Amino acid sequence: MPSKKKNITELGEKKLIKRLLKRSQTIPFNPTFFDEKSLQSLSDDAALVDLGDSYLVVTTDLLLRSAHFPVEMNYQQMGEKIVTVNVSDLAAMGAKPLGITIALGLPSDLSINQFDHIVEGIIIACQKYDTPLIGGDTNESTELTLSGTCLGLVDKDKVLMRSGAQEGDVIAVTGPLGLAAAGFEILLNKSFFKNWDDSLKENIIKNSLEPVAQLEKGLKLIKSPGVTSATDISDGLLSEIGEMMDSSPSKVGVKIFEELLPIPEEVYQVAENLDKNVLELALAYGEDFELLVTIEKDKFLELQDKIDLQKIGYITSSGQIQMVNKEGKTKILREKGYEHFK
Amino acid sequence: MPSKKKNITELGEKKLIKRLLKRSQTIPFNPTFFDEKSLQSLSDDAALVDLGDSYLVVTTDLLLRSAHFPVEMNYQQMGEKIVTVNVSDLAAMGAKPLGITIALGLPSDLSINQFDHIVEGIIIACQKYDTPLIGGDTNESTELTLSGTCLGLVDKDKVLMRSGAQEGDVIAVTGPLGLAAAGFEILLNKSFFKNWDDSLKENIIKNSLEPVAQLEKGLKLIKSPGVTSATDISDGLLSEIGEMMDSSPSKVGVKIFEELLPIPEEVYQVAENLDKNVLELALAYGEDFELLVTIEKDKFLELQDKIDLQKIGYITSSGQIQMVNKEGKTKILREKGYEHFK
Repeated sequence: MPSKKKNITELGEKKLIKRLLKRSQTIPFNPTFFDEKSLQSLSDDAALVDLGDSYLVVTTDLLLRSAHFPVEMNYQQMGEKIVTVNVSDLAAMGAKPLGITIALGLPSDLSINQFDHIVEGIIIACQKYDTPLIGGDTNESTELTLSGTCLGLVDKDKVLMRSGAQEGDVIAVTGPLGLAAAGFEILLNKSFFKNWDDSLKENIIKNSLEPVAQLEKGLKLIKSPGVTSATDISDGLLSEIGEMMDSSPSKVGVKIFEELLPIPEEVYQVAENLDKNVLELALAYGEDFELLVTIEKDKFLELQDKIDLQKIGYITSSGQIQMVNKEGKTKILREKGYEHFK
Repeated sequence: MPSKKKNITELGEKKLIKRLLKRSQTIPFNPTFFDEKSLQSLSDDAALVDLGDSYLVVTTDLLLRSAHFPVEMNYQQMGEKIVTVNVSDLAAMGAKPLGITIALGLPSDLSINQFDHIVEGIIIACQKYDTPLIGGDTNESTELTLSGTCLGLVDKDKVLMRSGAQEGDVIAVTGPLGLAAAGFEILLNKSFFKNWDDSLKENIIKNSLEPVAQLEKGLKLIKSPGVTSATDISDGLLSEIGEMMDSSPSKVGVKIFEELLPIPEEVYQVAENLDKNVLELALAYGEDFELLVTIEKDKFLELQDKIDLQKIGYITSSGQIQMVNKEGKTKILREKGYEHFK
């Protein structure tokens, strides 16, 4: 009887990355350019190179047509997205972009016109985030593949990491939850929405096809006292809360309040129309390019005056993600964020 | 009658990259971190970040199963290759690797065992080049895709660029030409080689499946006086000579001598067996991870004592690639290097 081979889908993305990075510990890091935070940052999807007063932040993100680009996404939007996802990783650390390199895997039947639209999208996004394109590479591939590497710069003593949350901190997000998910659901279930107003649908879908990195907010957060941790939530709020808890040196938990969650009315309507749980869209689906931030309790109000932040709860020492629902009942949530391979 | 849409294959890889990078000039580069050489380096497949005394070198390379991994290549070899191709770009600049980040696009039917073999290959190569793995990302994709970004460090006043060759310089390579091509040809035409000795074939094929980056030579070259330019020749010798000529500020040409070309006997045998031109394999095919170097004429002999280099000709002012064949006749060669999309 042949033994059943275990497949990577059984592990999921986060465990695969850990499996990869764990093996690297055999090779010494140059101590001049990698300090303790640099090593911590391996779990932040970014490498921090120690430049004395600053860290050079290096993030890399790979987007593949089948996994990341819905059929409705045009080439310009694909070009924009590869820049946005990389800049979003920098934003989460409070880093200012220095430049981006992009390697493209292109199917041989791609037209020059389509290629130019991808380039146009890349340049539009580079301009939006003031990030010059500093290198590129092209290859032939069966599916359209865009790989970006973004370099940024951040003050060493201020860099925002995923770890750092302390019991009592306020936990907040920079914007609405579930809009990208709602847009993708409309695209996936068009017939359910045929009676909806076109411009309403378009507005929702725009969140899915043209996400925006919260760079300005990231750069403001880093200048503000009392911010203890930050991460982007493009992999889903719950998943990122889980990562934040895992990377914290002390045992922390999170208590969020359903009535504080900034879920727009449209997201409720889309969920209702599809008979789905709105919290699945808002907390687990991902693709909202917002930041999740923890802030010392007594600094939060002051910060909220400067940056539009939505408090959703606070940090506990429970080691769990608890949610107080609208009826006042406390439930325990699992980190079932959207994960590729799962 | 429908108009015929122009396809990217009509442009070829080099022109596509130029088309991409040309558009970036609208966004200002931070002058603290990008100097004139940084901007020049855009055509060197590397970004140079100005750190005062040193440049941080950032290279990025994307490998796709269909384009870069022959069916005979095992998963460990694929993992090794993504590190090797990136380290080779650093070697060509004389940069010492600081670390590498690797993003993997993985088909969902990949087994954990296969994944672990890729990781094993990555780690083996990282150890070989003393390059820690400093970040990673995984995604689901239809074809196996490996994207690497390598960081390195190089003295600012010594960095080796593709430009810089001067009339009269010696042009040399760090090792044999055509071995990788010969290996690929054996793999592609197995029936033609069924009577060949297995261990001979294996030795040749090893050059194709397990290329080695010339990092040690790159690090020696940068310490040696008189080296005026360097590049790796993995895209083919002629193609890289063409790039070197294009990037030179003054009009230069190259004269190479057929009898000086370090083409091993096996490459002649493979070419003969397939009725192919041996020069096609040695000069145009690519995948030899050797370096092409130009050196001031009066420094060459001294350098050759320290580093095993094969002189193949010298730099002229002709603006052409000339080859003196074994009969003493001079021919003009075209830069028809191996290009993806062509």
